[in-house]
Amino acid sequence: MDNITYEDFKKLEMRIGWIRFIEPIDGTDKLLRFEIDFGEKESEEIPFDKEEYKGRDVRQIVSGIREFFPKYNSLLGKKVLYIVNLEPREIRGVMSNGMLMAVDGLDGKPVLLTANGIVEAGSKVR
Amino acid sequence: MDNITYEDFKKLEMRIGWIRFIEPIDGTDKLLRFEIDFGEKESEEIPFDKEEYKGRDVRQIVSGIREFFPKYNSLLGKKVLYIVNLEPREIRGVMSNGMLMAVDGLDGKPVLLTANGIVEAGSKVR
Repeated sequence: MDNITYEDFKKLEMRIGWIRFIEPIDGTDKLLRFEIDFGEKESEEIPFDKEEYKGRDVRQIVSGIREFFPKYNSLLGKKVLYIVNLEPREIRGVMSNGMLMAVDGLDGKPVLLTANGIVEAGSKVR
Repeated sequence: MDNITYEDFKKLEMRIGWIRFIEPIDGTDKLLRFEIDFGEKESEEIPFDKEEYKGRDVRQIVSGIREFFPKYNSLLGKKVLYIVNLEPREIRGVMSNGMLMAVDGLDGKPVLLTANGIVEAGSKVR
């Protein structure tokens, strides 16, 4: 791969997100719809009309990992790494406002990335 | 921050590196010199003249985290996330061929990023 500059790196906004809700997307075996909490946010808006999200930056993110995580609810509560400033895109009619990051595991299954210590939702890669 | 495209993201090569050696850099309180293993590599070369690195892709990376990790050898053996295709740069006379990634912890201390499962050194973010 070509080298990049530090400025190229700084264009990416990567943050730890707290997985608060997961559901499969109808009509596909691969896609999951996540509600991901990126920390406190001053706003009157209540994301997804869920009272427990009040004052939080909760975004919808779609990820194609269902086949690797058939028991997807085991991911609930985890704090893992996302890219949060990718152009939003519509996947099977569902908007995705970010991308889950993962590396290849030993068996080809994606392995999510997490902080090696206690961090708050929304913590940013610097 | 501005949005980026998927192509902007794909320019970055991020891999899990296995921390094999750490030493402080003379004349500074902040810098550590790491020897990081990014997996198998076919080569006759023996990185850093260390027989145990034969056939491995071991790179030198400098990081300014010493003040946060005074017992830096506690990091030995860890597998954490790096950007590996940043332009190499010289820091206090020592070449750095990559950058350690971290997020802010609760106390302002950097927290390293690791895989949430077993992965091999060199595993790449996709």
